[in-house]
Amino acid sequence: MINPVNLVEIWRGSLLESVHQGHAVVCHASGDILHAWGDPDALVYPRSSAKMIQALPLIESGAADRFGLSAAQLALACASHNGAAIHTDRVQSWLTDLELDDSALRCGAQAPLEKSVRHGMIKTDDSPCQYHNNCSGKHAGFLTLSKHLGAGPEYVESDHPVQQAIFDAFNEVTGFESPTFGIDGCSAPNPATTIHAMARAMAFFASANPDGDLRNRAAARLRNAMMAYPELVAGEGRPCTRLMRACNGKVAIKFGAEAYFIAIIPDQKLGVALKISDGSTRAANCAIAAILVKLGLLDSEHPEAQAYINEPIINWRGIHTGWMRPAPTLQ
Amino acid sequence: MINPVNLVEIWRGSLLESVHQGHAVVCHASGDILHAWGDPDALVYPRSSAKMIQALPLIESGAADRFGLSAAQLALACASHNGAAIHTDRVQSWLTDLELDDSALRCGAQAPLEKSVRHGMIKTDDSPCQYHNNCSGKHAGFLTLSKHLGAGPEYVESDHPVQQAIFDAFNEVTGFESPTFGIDGCSAPNPATTIHAMARAMAFFASANPDGDLRNRAAARLRNAMMAYPELVAGEGRPCTRLMRACNGKVAIKFGAEAYFIAIIPDQKLGVALKISDGSTRAANCAIAAILVKLGLLDSEHPEAQAYINEPIINWRGIHTGWMRPAPTLQ
Repeated sequence: MINPVNLVEIWRGSLLESVHQGHAVVCHASGDILHAWGDPDALVYPRSSAKMIQALPLIESGAADRFGLSAAQLALACASHNGAAIHTDRVQSWLTDLELDDSALRCGAQAPLEKSVRHGMIKTDDSPCQYHNNCSGKHAGFLTLSKHLGAGPEYVESDHPVQQAIFDAFNEVTGFESPTFGIDGCSAPNPATTIHAMARAMAFFASANPDGDLRNRAAARLRNAMMAYPELVAGEGRPCTRLMRACNGKVAIKFGAEAYFIAIIPDQKLGVALKISDGSTRAANCAIAAILVKLGLLDSEHPEAQAYINEPIINWRGIHTGWMRPAPTLQ
Repeated sequence: MINPVNLVEIWRGSLLESVHQGHAVVCHASGDILHAWGDPDALVYPRSSAKMIQALPLIESGAADRFGLSAAQLALACASHNGAAIHTDRVQSWLTDLELDDSALRCGAQAPLEKSVRHGMIKTDDSPCQYHNNCSGKHAGFLTLSKHLGAGPEYVESDHPVQQAIFDAFNEVTGFESPTFGIDGCSAPNPATTIHAMARAMAFFASANPDGDLRNRAAARLRNAMMAYPELVAGEGRPCTRLMRACNGKVAIKFGAEAYFIAIIPDQKLGVALKISDGSTRAANCAIAAILVKLGLLDSEHPEAQAYINEPIINWRGIHTGWMRPAPTLQ
């Protein structure tokens, strides 16, 4: 086991105040590593960074085509969205298309991240629904597959045909037999895998041929849907959306809880996976932006790059008190 | 330099998902170390954990007595409060007593942590004032000292007599010449010191004699004010308040931003200082609770101890998915 390495630094005045460590791998679909930090074999849950893998059976089974899913819906199936109207309207009409409603979801209710929607609910004393949950697009995809398979309503149970299909796809694209799974924030099983295996899976998505076999076509379709709809994959103001736009639609990027991040880079046929060991979102945002800069996908002077790799820390009176920056190893 | 050590673990299912490292020292006023984790000489900003030191000149100068400050006001001077009415009403009337108003503060406006107050503001489209800032009690103390000294209004400037008096007190009680300071979230200078020096200062507060010299009397008065008003030092639901109550008023506990924590333990004449290297609040809460248990100040089975040292991670559907626990080194 290799220790995690310093990836992100928080400076205040002339002093390093806090530091974030982690593991990261950039590799080819062959598994050949281009860059690595920390331990490529660190075993972690990719959490929501695995949503495009969890959506593979939705396409491969024929369910997506049978129910006429659009690229926007496929992007939502891979999303951790803000719960803005552009997300929830689509999820609600998707459920209607399936002749289902909010009660069919098993993700739980979550207050939307989108401030205007959240504040609107506070003003009217409304409670969030399950479709507001950031994972509701993924769950609409699960329900679509479940309906296609004629399976039961408890689609997040690990022995349900939907999850069984996902476990198989997960082990196959990572090339690694997952030894265990955890239950995610949205109640779906989330298989553990190594950083290296996850980066390799993302490189497969990057190199997937839209005219290839079933799996290649499914992976290319999901990757392209994510790149085409950055605002559906996360939302306004969110790092995934901002960084995908800043990379001019040439990269698919996906955050996962507890500070996971992946990137799918078709032009270079590369995959990226990273985990900040302490689970800090701020550090994951900075580290993925630094890797995108390092790979030449994002100009370091681009305002969206600067926002994450040179982020000023501003206090309550607007005074600039420090910086968040990538550690020297990531620069 | 000694590396930080694992202090807190986040488990999901059977896998360690995230881990928090840090430094901590438990010592006597002599500086003799009872327990240490990581590097006692790590140099960090204690942030709001230093508020009782920043309040020493308020008492020692005679300002507190001249303006008739109560123990509740002294507790507020040491507080990072929730912005609940019990805090803001007191700060507002304190400012009135000084013939000042919100505009005299230099802490900046901050939305209150107290949910009911924050949601009330959202409902009425109100903006927070400076007195809502979690540091407004400390700043009311600064203004009191500034008025007593007849000094100018820019009391957070590092060359202002208020801050100069604080720098002197800080170096004296820590027994360590601070090499630098940072600007805090509330705009006040915050001197850097070592974990060991900070723990030693807290042990001085723990052993301060209420009938001793000027500094001893001031330190004892502040420590006792904090212990007497746990709800003013933080607020309902906050770890400082909950843990002080769970320790039956026998310990003063204070969080600082970027995951600092101190404890002042009069019965054992001990001081505690800890820093989670990555700045994570959740880990700092868990680590300080674990140290209080280790020192016999809190029964490990007490519900408030369990809430922090055996905290269940519950997902959006109420399913128990994991645990936050102290690392074996802290158990």
